[in-house]
Amino acid sequence: NLDGQSFDLLLDEAQLAHTKFIVVSKSGGTAETMMQLSCALTALKKAGLDTAKHVSGIAGSGSNTLRDVAERAGFPLLPHADGIGGRFAVLTNVGLLPALLMGVDPISVRQGASEALSCFMEAPVAEIPSAIGAAMQIAHAGKNRNISVLMPYTDRLERLGFWYRQLWAESLGKDGLGTCPVNALGPVDQHSQVQLYLGGPDDKLYNLITAKNQHPGPKALAEACDIPELSWLQGRSIGELVAAEAIATFTALKENARPVRHIEMQDVTGHSVGYILMHFMLETIIAAGLMDIDAFDQPAVEQGKIIAKKLMSESSN
Amino acid sequence: NLDGQSFDLLLDEAQLAHTKFIVVSKSGGTAETMMQLSCALTALKKAGLDTAKHVSGIAGSGSNTLRDVAERAGFPLLPHADGIGGRFAVLTNVGLLPALLMGVDPISVRQGASEALSCFMEAPVAEIPSAIGAAMQIAHAGKNRNISVLMPYTDRLERLGFWYRQLWAESLGKDGLGTCPVNALGPVDQHSQVQLYLGGPDDKLYNLITAKNQHPGPKALAEACDIPELSWLQGRSIGELVAAEAIATFTALKENARPVRHIEMQDVTGHSVGYILMHFMLETIIAAGLMDIDAFDQPAVEQGKIIAKKLMSESSN
Repeated sequence: NLDGQSFDLLLDEAQLAHTKFIVVSKSGGTAETMMQLSCALTALKKAGLDTAKHVSGIAGSGSNTLRDVAERAGFPLLPHADGIGGRFAVLTNVGLLPALLMGVDPISVRQGASEALSCFMEAPVAEIPSAIGAAMQIAHAGKNRNISVLMPYTDRLERLGFWYRQLWAESLGKDGLGTCPVNALGPVDQHSQVQLYLGGPDDKLYNLITAKNQHPGPKALAEACDIPELSWLQGRSIGELVAAEAIATFTALKENARPVRHIEMQDVTGHSVGYILMHFMLETIIAAGLMDIDAFDQPAVEQGKIIAKKLMSESSN
Repeated sequence: NLDGQSFDLLLDEAQLAHTKFIVVSKSGGTAETMMQLSCALTALKKAGLDTAKHVSGIAGSGSNTLRDVAERAGFPLLPHADGIGGRFAVLTNVGLLPALLMGVDPISVRQGASEALSCFMEAPVAEIPSAIGAAMQIAHAGKNRNISVLMPYTDRLERLGFWYRQLWAESLGKDGLGTCPVNALGPVDQHSQVQLYLGGPDDKLYNLITAKNQHPGPKALAEACDIPELSWLQGRSIGELVAAEAIATFTALKENARPVRHIEMQDVTGHSVGYILMHFMLETIIAAGLMDIDAFDQPAVEQGKIIAKKLMSESSN
């Protein structure tokens, strides 16, 4: 996120020599990105460092500001895939280069995505998970459920919720239509949101995601807490409790006649995350088809950009 | 959040000697908290460390599980304020002890809160900000705006959004009533959510929060990026761009006839955060009054807890 204090902490001079920046902009002119790039270049030069060695990026082809800056500063750019922007670029180098740097095998991510796509291309229509998901979401939207909650039960998928939120909101929020994606996280949001989910209005569709074979984490052993009230924890792992709580929330929602879908992943790996990324992209694109909406544009975002740019140039005069 | 892999990383043996745990539970028996405590005690004993020196906590008075464990393990407990639970405990030691450890002066937080309370007690009814806010929220809920978006424009207030989300959802989501709180973050969610906000259905109330005197962050200087397309950035700070973008979003929402409230804080300090915490608690309590709802209970949360406990004891047999 663009934040002065956060970026200042990041540009700490002592760390700068060991810091590399990746600048990504398809248009090559996104205001927040250009601002961060300019500040990073300023800090690198002030620290006497070679910008060519500390910055690299991904930019759309053709002449654009990011290409001009890269040429002057001498840093390399990878090509941004033509025609695949923003929320849909996660399976291109835009998403996979950072994934690679964090130790995720990009090939496995693409393989997972490819399997979800094969399923879409080859299964009978009534058995395509993304088509069923899209139909379900649209049906509930038609019953005045204008909120769609995505609630994974693992920290590893928390950021997936933020990507999904953009995917769904920005692709479908047009022509006065679209439902509001809400990301939640289990089990913590049982303490935060479940009162509203069970006791509030019936205006939401719930999507719980669990992972079957995820890392169970530490176990509680008797010698550490030998009091009778905690005997139910003896030898149990955190993962077991999380799994029980996910089923409990699913059951409680069902018992209260709230519409709930349970997506069970095998595990949280590059492969399975690639699969679910493609699944949700397909589900969103099919939903857009059912709503007769263009999933790929975002016309309303421009309005704010124009106002911000006007404010910036006015105040500098 | 309760997550096996996250907690395993936290219990890394090399770090354990330098780690202190604070366990907080009003009831003294919250499942997630007891599980984490048991795992922490197990790991500390395994590492040969003195649990009395590595754990402390806050627990409700009277006999409870946390008190029993603390007595056996020999670690100290602070008293949990009677009658102030969960989402409303942020101004007691539950919120202020962690704040103190992170360098925030708890006295200044309480002073800020006290000022918001004085304003509530002393101002004429029609001028009390929390009463006006509550009336506005309820009025929009009555016009089928069942979603209330809280969008601060600074990373420093991102977690405030999560606290507010619990406060509003859990206090008001009862008897089929309550609106759905959604937390957003500026400017990043301009790229993620604003298409939906401007182009989607008119079912949301927007609450933007900015801070007037926050840390501006680094500036972009001409010598770093001397190309004409970036001349608008010369000498400008990240903070200036963020401020311009906040006004741009506010203006775009207004121009599209979406209801939007702008809360401007002076800065982001313990004092101003204390003020806004109290403001939102009062706003929520007044809204509950207008809705004829008990703001302080959360009856539906129990249902899931009972199912989870049943699943845990069944699978252990």
